[in-house]
Amino acid sequence: MKVSQLGEFGLVDLLAKMVSDSRNNRSTSWHQLILGIGDDCAAWHGDSSIQLAHVDSIIQGVHFTLDTTSWNELGWKALAVTMSDIAAMGGIPRYALVSLTLNDDTKVEDVTALYQGMIELAQRFEVAIVGGDTSYAPVVSITVMVLGSTGKQAKRYMLARSSARPGDKIAVTGYLGSSAAGLEMLTGKLSFNNEVADYLGNAFLRPSPRITEGQVLVKQGVKAAIDISDGLVSDLKHVCEASKVGARIEIERLPIHPAVRDNFGEKSVVLALSGGEDYELLFTASAEVVNKVKRAISCPVTVIGEIMADRAGEIEIIDVNGRPFNLPETGWEHFRAKRI
Amino acid sequence: MKVSQLGEFGLVDLLAKMVSDSRNNRSTSWHQLILGIGDDCAAWHGDSSIQLAHVDSIIQGVHFTLDTTSWNELGWKALAVTMSDIAAMGGIPRYALVSLTLNDDTKVEDVTALYQGMIELAQRFEVAIVGGDTSYAPVVSITVMVLGSTGKQAKRYMLARSSARPGDKIAVTGYLGSSAAGLEMLTGKLSFNNEVADYLGNAFLRPSPRITEGQVLVKQGVKAAIDISDGLVSDLKHVCEASKVGARIEIERLPIHPAVRDNFGEKSVVLALSGGEDYELLFTASAEVVNKVKRAISCPVTVIGEIMADRAGEIEIIDVNGRPFNLPETGWEHFRAKRI
Repeated sequence: MKVSQLGEFGLVDLLAKMVSDSRNNRSTSWHQLILGIGDDCAAWHGDSSIQLAHVDSIIQGVHFTLDTTSWNELGWKALAVTMSDIAAMGGIPRYALVSLTLNDDTKVEDVTALYQGMIELAQRFEVAIVGGDTSYAPVVSITVMVLGSTGKQAKRYMLARSSARPGDKIAVTGYLGSSAAGLEMLTGKLSFNNEVADYLGNAFLRPSPRITEGQVLVKQGVKAAIDISDGLVSDLKHVCEASKVGARIEIERLPIHPAVRDNFGEKSVVLALSGGEDYELLFTASAEVVNKVKRAISCPVTVIGEIMADRAGEIEIIDVNGRPFNLPETGWEHFRAKRI
Repeated sequence: MKVSQLGEFGLVDLLAKMVSDSRNNRSTSWHQLILGIGDDCAAWHGDSSIQLAHVDSIIQGVHFTLDTTSWNELGWKALAVTMSDIAAMGGIPRYALVSLTLNDDTKVEDVTALYQGMIELAQRFEVAIVGGDTSYAPVVSITVMVLGSTGKQAKRYMLARSSARPGDKIAVTGYLGSSAAGLEMLTGKLSFNNEVADYLGNAFLRPSPRITEGQVLVKQGVKAAIDISDGLVSDLKHVCEASKVGARIEIERLPIHPAVRDNFGEKSVVLALSGGEDYELLFTASAEVVNKVKRAISCPVTVIGEIMADRAGEIEIIDVNGRPFNLPETGWEHFRAKRI
């Protein structure tokens, strides 16, 4: 069978099972492991804190094209998308390692611009870039590994995909669909006024990982979260599958930025539901905890639905008239589709 | 300027300087950092032990071709080459994260064979595979990140490239040139008897990282080491540059396996000096410490030369008649050459 028939998620499940079957609890590493393949980050007990690690790659012609993304933006984004998974655990990112593949034709100035973009973001969140690897390959790719920790906290203070419970409210930080709208603007060469163009361009090209916000969630008692990279519905599905619950979300509650709603009309709902790459945090908690989060956090927090006990792994989308909404596509999956 | 004009090592130096200039010692991450870009691993102070991290990629058409390497061997080797850098610090590998790029045409059975190869090696050294990422790309690549620690030891117990001192003996574990001879056999379709073919094939396809041996080096008081990935001369040069010393090595002392010496004649010396991918450990220490290592270790250890005070960064190679030996090539460097 080809990987394109199985799809990315099927493949990951298969590999996760192989690795899990090889587990040896008498070894120190496995004994100290809290979360392996399947959550936003791997997590294990360090000497006195929980250690977090995540790796992510962005690849030319798949995740980006140099027609719409500058080298500086590429560096920023490669680090941002990886740090976002540390944010989704409520962790503090500490160290980054970077593996680059470049063509012989790549200009040195382009690579330094790429590093400059990474350094700008690293400095903002006090992350040290400590190692890496450069190789020749026909396409440019950037693989970033970020290591973090939860600080000196117990296991219950880590955000996991598997902790959503029936009755929890489903909430998101910031706005949804802005990054996908930015990509549409760049690839479709759509023209907007400067303010809109800047907002949309930044949403796609320079997303800011919700590091501080992730830590607020943990502090206020949230247990379950994920970052929105594949798309709202797709990522919520990951939470529901891991937590063995269902979910209902209401379209009229989706936080869509005016720059998107005003310029993309009805399509803005689809962008918000399945566009992906927002790097906002989706979390679930009691209404009381969500309200505490709203008071403690500096970005918008919007309740968009509720976790249900029945139909585990399924997402029900309700339109403005209370009727089921049919979503044309359900997020990004490698080997099944190529974005660019 | 193109990266092919600057070369891999020039590019890494440039990027390392950019990152170093961005250092902020008031941040926890930078404050706790011991080694950043430029050694075998990044190293920083954890709560009570030193943490080590290294990332390495192997790429189709550059580091391997599926004509000569099976998917199982590919998995083994991708993990082995990364673990080897933990060995070169005297560390204990603990966790691995794996980023794969695959074609749509890649078979699921191939990917599971790749993981099977990784799992076999991971189980041998009690490493837990805890995360990863799979993406579409036109070529297959495997990026592995390994995290380890030195155990609860002080800074002085870590092997560094920068600790070689004039008068130190230069020693290596195992044999040199066997991997490059294996590659020549596979690409040149050379035929040998089964025993030789197995030895050479394994040397190239299933190298064993010197994890246990690295820990013996630390315990016996060795301070400086590197793993031989680019080639003996090239890697020794990295040590000399980091330590600001020179080196003299004698060809007649090179440990070359009979399977290589008997079948590759004079070329075996070149393979041993610059072939690369041996994943043996090169270390420097006083004659007394080297003798202690020899008694404590289970693999061959051979003194091949001496660290010199003068001509920092330069390697003098002496032939059997005591005359300088001219090496046709000096190891593997990305962007300057493609191996396959």
